[in-house]
Order: sequence, then C-alpha cells, then structure tokens
Amino acid sequence: MATAETKNVVILGAGFAGISLARELGRLTKKTPSIQVHLVNQENYFVFQPMLPEVVSCAIEPSHILNPIRHLCPTAAFHQATITGIDLTSQKVRLAGIDSRQPRELPYDHLVISLGLAMNLSGVPGMTEHALPLKTLGDAFHLRNHVISRLEEADSESDAERRKTLLTFVTIGGGFSGVETAAAINDMVKSVLRFYPQAQETGARMILIHSREYILQELEAGLGEFATQKLQERGVEVRLLTTVKAITSNKVVLSTEERISARTVICTVGNAPHPLMTSLPLSQERGRILVDATLQVTGTTNLWALGDAALVPVSGGSGYCPPTAQYAMRQGRHGARNILAELAGGPLKPFRFGGYGQMALIGRHCGIAKVFGVRLYGLFAWALWRSLYLMKLPSFRSKARVAIDWMFEILFPRDITKMAVERTEQVNHAHFQQGDIIIQQGEIGDLFYIIESGEVEIVRQSPGKPEEQLAKRSAGDSFGELALLQDVARTATVRCLTPVNVISFNRKDFLQLTGSSHLFKTHMKNELAIMEKQEKVLNAEPPTPSPQNPCA
Amino acid sequence: MATAETKNVVILGAGFAGISLARELGRLTKKTPSIQVHLVNQENYFVFQPMLPEVVSCAIEPSHILNPIRHLCPTAAFHQATITGIDLTSQKVRLAGIDSRQPRELPYDHLVISLGLAMNLSGVPGMTEHALPLKTLGDAFHLRNHVISRLEEADSESDAERRKTLLTFVTIGGGFSGVETAAAINDMVKSVLRFYPQAQETGARMILIHSREYILQELEAGLGEFATQKLQERGVEVRLLTTVKAITSNKVVLSTEERISARTVICTVGNAPHPLMTSLPLSQERGRILVDATLQVTGTTNLWALGDAALVPVSGGSGYCPPTAQYAMRQGRHGARNILAELAGGPLKPFRFGGYGQMALIGRHCGIAKVFGVRLYGLFAWALWRSLYLMKLPSFRSKARVAIDWMFEILFPRDITKMAVERTEQVNHAHFQQGDIIIQQGEIGDLFYIIESGEVEIVRQSPGKPEEQLAKRSAGDSFGELALLQDVARTATVRCLTPVNVISFNRKDFLQLTGSSHLFKTHMKNELAIMEKQEKVLNAEPPTPSPQNPCA
Repeated sequence: MATAETKNVVILGAGFAGISLARELGRLTKKTPSIQVHLVNQENYFVFQPMLPEVVSCAIEPSHILNPIRHLCPTAAFHQATITGIDLTSQKVRLAGIDSRQPRELPYDHLVISLGLAMNLSGVPGMTEHALPLKTLGDAFHLRNHVISRLEEADSESDAERRKTLLTFVTIGGGFSGVETAAAINDMVKSVLRFYPQAQETGARMILIHSREYILQELEAGLGEFATQKLQERGVEVRLLTTVKAITSNKVVLSTEERISARTVICTVGNAPHPLMTSLPLSQERGRILVDATLQVTGTTNLWALGDAALVPVSGGSGYCPPTAQYAMRQGRHGARNILAELAGGPLKPFRFGGYGQMALIGRHCGIAKVFGVRLYGLFAWALWRSLYLMKLPSFRSKARVAIDWMFEILFPRDITKMAVERTEQVNHAHFQQGDIIIQQGEIGDLFYIIESGEVEIVRQSPGKPEEQLAKRSAGDSFGELALLQDVARTATVRCLTPVNVISFNRKDFLQLTGSSHLFKTHMKNELAIMEKQEKVLNAEPPTPSPQNPCA
Repeated sequence: MATAETKNVVILGAGFAGISLARELGRLTKKTPSIQVHLVNQENYFVFQPMLPEVVSCAIEPSHILNPIRHLCPTAAFHQATITGIDLTSQKVRLAGIDSRQPRELPYDHLVISLGLAMNLSGVPGMTEHALPLKTLGDAFHLRNHVISRLEEADSESDAERRKTLLTFVTIGGGFSGVETAAAINDMVKSVLRFYPQAQETGARMILIHSREYILQELEAGLGEFATQKLQERGVEVRLLTTVKAITSNKVVLSTEERISARTVICTVGNAPHPLMTSLPLSQERGRILVDATLQVTGTTNLWALGDAALVPVSGGSGYCPPTAQYAMRQGRHGARNILAELAGGPLKPFRFGGYGQMALIGRHCGIAKVFGVRLYGLFAWALWRSLYLMKLPSFRSKARVAIDWMFEILFPRDITKMAVERTEQVNHAHFQQGDIIIQQGEIGDLFYIIESGEVEIVRQSPGKPEEQLAKRSAGDSFGELALLQDVARTATVRCLTPVNVISFNRKDFLQLTGSSHLFKTHMKNELAIMEKQEKVLNAEPPTPSPQNPCA
C-alpha cells in the first residue's frame, strides 16, 4: 500500500473529528486511488456521545447510538487496535491488535491525531475508586446497570438508613454533561420507582454539586438560573459554590463539611490528556496539541491535530475553540480539505467557525439553548435539542433506532433491565496439547502464567543457530513475569512437553498484585534478580544457557 | 408478610416455567390478598432464550429479547438475589443480595423450584477453557463480540494461515440450539464479510460437529437429512458420527483424528444440574427433580418443581416431558392452579400435555418443523417459526422491538458493532475515611483486602460486652482471608484508624490464586494455621484477645 505513488493518511481516533475527516476524505478522493486513508480506533464503532445521558436513563438502548465504523467510512482501511506508540522520525504508528499478541506498524505520509481527551479522577481522595465517570459507552452501560442495581437492592433492604443511602444519587459537575446526566437519572428513577414498592416509600434523592456561582457556566447567568430553578422544581438539590473533599463507598464529603450518604457518585469533571500524548514531543497545553489555524501542528508539514485533542486558535479572536462536537465535525471536514491541498502542493486555508450556539436538556420536555445569540427555554429548547441531535446522528439506521426509542418512551414504561453481559463461566484457565506453543518469542507479553498440571520447556531461537532449551517448568511453577514487568517482547518461547493446563493473569491484575502486596513484591524482587543475572549470561556471547531462571 | 393469614409462595428462578407460574398466580389471586407470591432470580429480567442465536448473529439487539420481571409480574414481590441455600426443615430460602454483603432469609409456605439446568463443559480436555457456551444473555453477547473480533483481527492479519484459523467457526452439537447457532453465524459472517476486504479474500469456514447419524435427532431422519442438505448448500460443513477429543486455543481435535485450526468453538451440548440441586435431599436424576404428575415433589405437600429442573412424567405414557419452552410454560400455568388447589384443600390435577411439535431455523428464509405430526420445510417453516415465536414474546414492547429488528434486517446492512461495556477505568481500589468500617462482623465475606496506605484496627463485638481490639494492620498487610476460605460470615469488624486505601480481590480471583500457586498455598497454609490457633483462643471463655492474627 505504501508504494511510491500511494500516499497514506493515517487518522488516530474515530470520534466526531476523526470520523468526519475520514468521511470527507473518502468523499473527496473517490477518483484519487493514490490516496489511502487508514483509520485506527480502539473500538470498531463510533459512539454518539451527546446521547450517553439518555442511555444511562434507559430512554435509549445502548446499541442504538453506535455506528459501525466500517459502515460509516467504507473507503478507509479500518484498524481496530490499541495504539502503542508513534514514531515521528520514521513516520510509523505502532499498533497492537485485539488479542494484542502481534505488534504491527502502520507507515504514514500524513498523520492526524484526533484521540480526544481522557478522564482524570485522581484529584479527590476516593474519586478514582468510587466515582463513576461518563465518557464512553462502557461507562454509560455500567452507570445504567449501577443505578438499576441500587433500586433492586433498596427494594430488598430492610434497614431504612441503608435504603436512603442506596437511593441517593450525587452528580459532581454542573457543566452540560453533569446537568444532563443528573436530570436524566432523576427523570428515570422517579418514573420507575413505582415498580419498587419498598424503595418508593423511602423516595429517591438527587444532588448536583457545582463549584461555580451558577450551573452551565458556558452559557450565561440567566440561563443557568433558569436551569437551576427547573432542576429544583423537579426535585434535584443543587449545591453551588461547593466542591468535593472526599468520596468513600457510601458517602461524599463536601467543602461545606456536609456529609451525604450515597452509594452512587457520578463524576463529569476532570479532563486528562490521552495517555499517548504525554510521550509525544509536540507543544501541548494540558494534553491538547497546539496547532495553527490550518489545523497543522506548528512547525510540521505532515502532522495534524483536531477535535478535543487539539488547541485550535479561534479565527480572528483570542483563545481556542471549545471541545464540542460541532467544532470537531467542522474541523474534520476542514482538515480533509487542507490535507488534500498539502498533498497537491496548494495553499492551506485557516479554520473559521464561530459556533452556532449551545443547548442542554434539563429533564423531560425541558431544555435551554442559546443559538445564534438567541436564548430559548423549556419545551421548545427541548424539541430543538432532540431534532438537531437526531439529524446529527450519522446514519439513517441510527436515526430510526433513536426515533423509535423516543416513541417507545411515550408508549411503554421505561426499561429497567440490568443487562448481565458476563459469560456463563468466565475463566482464565487454558488447556494446551503436547507441542503447543504458549508464549512465542518476539510477541508482546501480555499474560503471566501459573502451571496447574503438565510440563513446559522454555526455549530460545536465535537466527542461524539451533534452538536451545533453557529450562523446564511444571505444576505450581510460573512463567511470563519478565516481559510483563519490563514491557518488552517475549525473549523466549514456551512450548508444552505434555498436555498442559495453566491459569493466566493479565498485566493489570498482575501489576496490581506486584505493586501492593509485600508478599508478591519480595517474591518478585528475588525472582527478578535471578532472572536479570540469567539475562546477562544469556545475552553474552557465546550463549551459555542455564536451566535455572530464564525469562519467557 | 408471613402472618398467620398470609401464605407465602416462593418461586426460585424466572425462566419460562417460573414466569408463567408467577403470572398465572398473579392473575388467579387478584382477589386473594392472603397469598403473597415471591419470585427470586439472579437477574432482574426474563430472557427469551429461543432467540439467543439471532442475538449472536446480530439480527436482534441483545436488549430486545429481555423483559423486566417487575413489568411482567407486577403483583409478585421480586427479589434480585443469589440463592445461597434452601432449608427444607425450617422452610426458608437463604439469599444474598446484589452486593452480597447482607444475608437474608425468605420463609415459604410453598416452594417452587424452576431453576432450569446449567452448562457442563468439563467433559473434554480444553472445553471449559476454550469452548463458548450459549445459555445466557451474557453468553450470546460474548459470542457475538467474539465473532466480530475474529473478523476485525482477520482483516488486519497478514499471515494467511492465521487468517484462516481466525475465520473458522466450529459448533459442537447438532441439536436445535447447535443447528440454529451454526446457521445464524454462517448467515451473519457471510453477509458482513464484504466490510472486511482482506478477510473476504480468505473466506470464512463454518463446521458443525454432531455425534449421531443425523442432526436434529429430536425430529426424524427425513427432516434431519433435509436440514443437513440445506446447511451444506449454504456452505456449512457437517461432520456426523463425530465427537471432539480436545480443544485448545487455536484448534479442535476430532474423534476421526482430524484437526481443525479454529479460534472459535461454540459448545451447545452438556447439561448439568443447577449448583443448588446437588445439596438438596430430593430424588433427582442428573440434576432434574423427580415430581409426580401433579408437579409436586414426590412425598411432599409444599414442594413443587417444574420446567427443565423437573422430571415430569408424560401423561398416559412412559418417559418424561422434554426440556422445552412449550412444556415449561404449560407446567407453569398448571402448577399455579395446583398450588391454589393445595392451599384451598381441593384435589390436585395431573399435568396433561402432548406438545404441539418442534421447529428449527436452518438459515435465512429456511426452516423445518414437525407440528401436530405434519412435516414442514423451507420458507413456510421459517415464517411459521418467526410468527409463533414473535407471538410467544411476553410483552408488546418486546414483540415490537423484535419485529422492528427483523424489518431493519431487510433495510440495512447487519450491525457489526463489538460493544465494549467495560468502564473507563475498572479498579478494585477503595478509599475509606477515618472511622469507616471496611468489614462488618456478621456479614458474608466476599472480599479479601491488601492495605495500600493507612492503618486499620480489627475489633470483635460480643453481645453484652465492650468491643475489644484484636489487632492493627497497616500498609502492605492483608485481611479478610479466613471468611473467604471457610465460606462463613465475618468473625470480626475492621475499622479505619486513619484514611485508608485498599485493593480488594473477590472470592473467585482469590480462590484461583490460592488454589494454584505454590507461593500462595504455602503462605496461606501458614497464615491459616496461625489464625485457627488464634480462633480457638478467641472462642474459649473468657476471651483472651491477642494482637497477632485475628480473622476478619
């Protein structure tokens, strides 16, 4: 594909910016087979984030706001993969596939970074552990299930105090996402409570905590006050000029020293750089890459950044474009045209867009909006929100699905299934036959193994030399530690000498164990010391294998 | 609720039998407030199992075949809980709620067991580890995601041999479930392959393995041969009179010594008793409870069993009713009337039902059926299947959802989103404040803790005595082991002396570790020996607490 003629445009991240860039490039290069667009994303779908609060509140089914990327961008080569590194010098992106064993490289002529932002919940003690974020589909799914579980539990709980704790829902952050989430869950809980007779007697409590003087500060004080009033009318308690000091599994401590007993705390504040950003030698401000008005990373000719991941200067003004869907989509389309201009040697155009305005839902049949400077309130703003966002959904299929969901909302009681998606028996045991390879030298190490039964041999393959056996391992022994700790490819192959049963642990489980338990730490330090010594011997020439502690 | 007047009917399990029993009881006891129906189920929804293969093949969205139990049975008291025990003597069912900390008891006057059957994958080496079952919604969801992941991987895989392995799908079992699953996945993979250009070049392979002479042996040879022929026409390879010898992560070894390289093996055979059944002193045959023709457990007057969990004699013949939905629903309705007759002191009636017939889908627009002795083939049988099962869906909402899905199937390309439902950051870290209680004496022990920072005290509360401090624990120490290993309630309380951060492990992770690693086994044996010694001292009167190794 990377022939002298074909130019590879690689897009990292398929959010609003990445998808609209890929679609626009697809449209503009229909008759230009010499340009190949690659799109890399962790998931194989595009998720319509503005509707996540409605997924949480069971008004829309989770799957209905998803669109397969291969349907949306049929001309782009799609790669479902984790991006493990970006090499700006050799112009390559390193990828790990779904099962993350085979590392791959994707060369690029132009690289577009549209990875968005991540969540950072580490600001407050207990927030990482106990606050529920709402950023991805998984978060929405989890939060929806969490809320329903609390209702189920409350209905079976005989202790009144515990029942109250189970039925208290706290949302942190009075921005768009926080207000819409608090309003949506409030509507939902109140409409389904009649199916939970014991819980209904206790009643549910919804609290919104915001650090500023009024909520929705992106709009203006008047609209914020209207929103506060409407939320309060619907039973949401709003705490302004308040921050959170600590969160535990059953309470929230506020800056006012108020302690709220609650089992559900939703956090909608705290953006963080995408993990990849920290290692990139590009000018950044809090994880957002500085670009010039053409969306090109300043000082480069083949690097582009857009969407939430980029700091795009506002045309003819000061400051930067806000991290919203409407800017991201516009930037995507603009970026496509500038990349093609760059490839054709033509002039680049600056990005000019002032934004149409902003809208928020503050509950059933109630919204607020400021569009082209005009303020809208109540039912009309709500209807405008629904119509505009329905139009923005990227496929007819998705539009139809969501429209039907909104009809069902009128016709039927709201869904309260807590979807269990675990397999019948989730096991990380594995069975291998004699001669099977458990670990292949050179692959990325993602698992650590303990042998339950059987015997394996650890062998090393060197180019131009016969394979050498380094060691044998049997029941109760473990292997695979070194690659995990050092984040490198496997340095040896593990092959079964008999039928073998193993238990595997992934990197996260393993690092958690090694990082926290005295027991494991001490054990691993000793093992590592032996292994490293071994490693030195092995790397010396000529190799002198020892049967003791090779690393696999 | 359990007053002298009110009679409690407790139903365990909300499958076809349990749901139809609860609904019939609700209908018949509208004017009898003295009968309270309790329904206990692990999940808060009823799943329409016959449509699971269509969920796997992305023809129906997972959530559309779910119905909230609280919607279906509004008059029953619903308990979402795990059943931890049944005490036939004191007439109580022991439950653990969703967060499984507070044990509860539910007294009954009549107990109905309709728990269905579980899966047993342990017959063949490697089957538990590598074969995918299809029994629950979670299984269907997982299998759907698994199939899509293999397509995504295959499209990125450069090695032709590996690509073939990724695109080979093996189904074990030629009964209704196996045939419908193989046919559905075959249809799906072939219709979406055009979105995976690299994978399309290689092509997909679907293999069905069956131990008998013809598939669908519940019907008859002629229909089985027709089904085999149709499956083969659609590209499914059918291996008859063949069993599986072993399964590894990338191959299946058959009794014919054929080795099929495949990354997807679906298993639809191997029923096992529900785990609760093994501990019940009731006459059973392979986990199914023997009942008489009235659905009453032989020799009792207040115990009933129905659905797949029961062996119900066929009226006027020999043998037992087959474990199918139509029998389970009929038994549910019949059981309701017999329970009411028993409560009223009236005579019980025997269950009489001969079955209407059976149907199977063998791919798009093709089915077979034998209804009232008449054989049906092809398009007509397919249309009959869809109409009948659509009618059988228990709510109008669900009927509408599925009908719309079937319409969408015609209008749009099939969905290929691999829904990721993991939270942004899945952590089992927890933060506690000074004075917070991490473990409460008397609760069910489900977690084991390692302290990351801070200090806790372990205290014991005894009735009528002051609380006594047994020990302190700080960073790097662990607590909570004993209750996990012995499956009893917590014997002491753990309270924070400072703000504390811990990492928790659940029973499964923990037992896996302790059960397999030399390291952990030795450590735990030592710890246990000390703890048990301690335990003896503590249980002696007067109590002499020691600060060393109490159990929490």
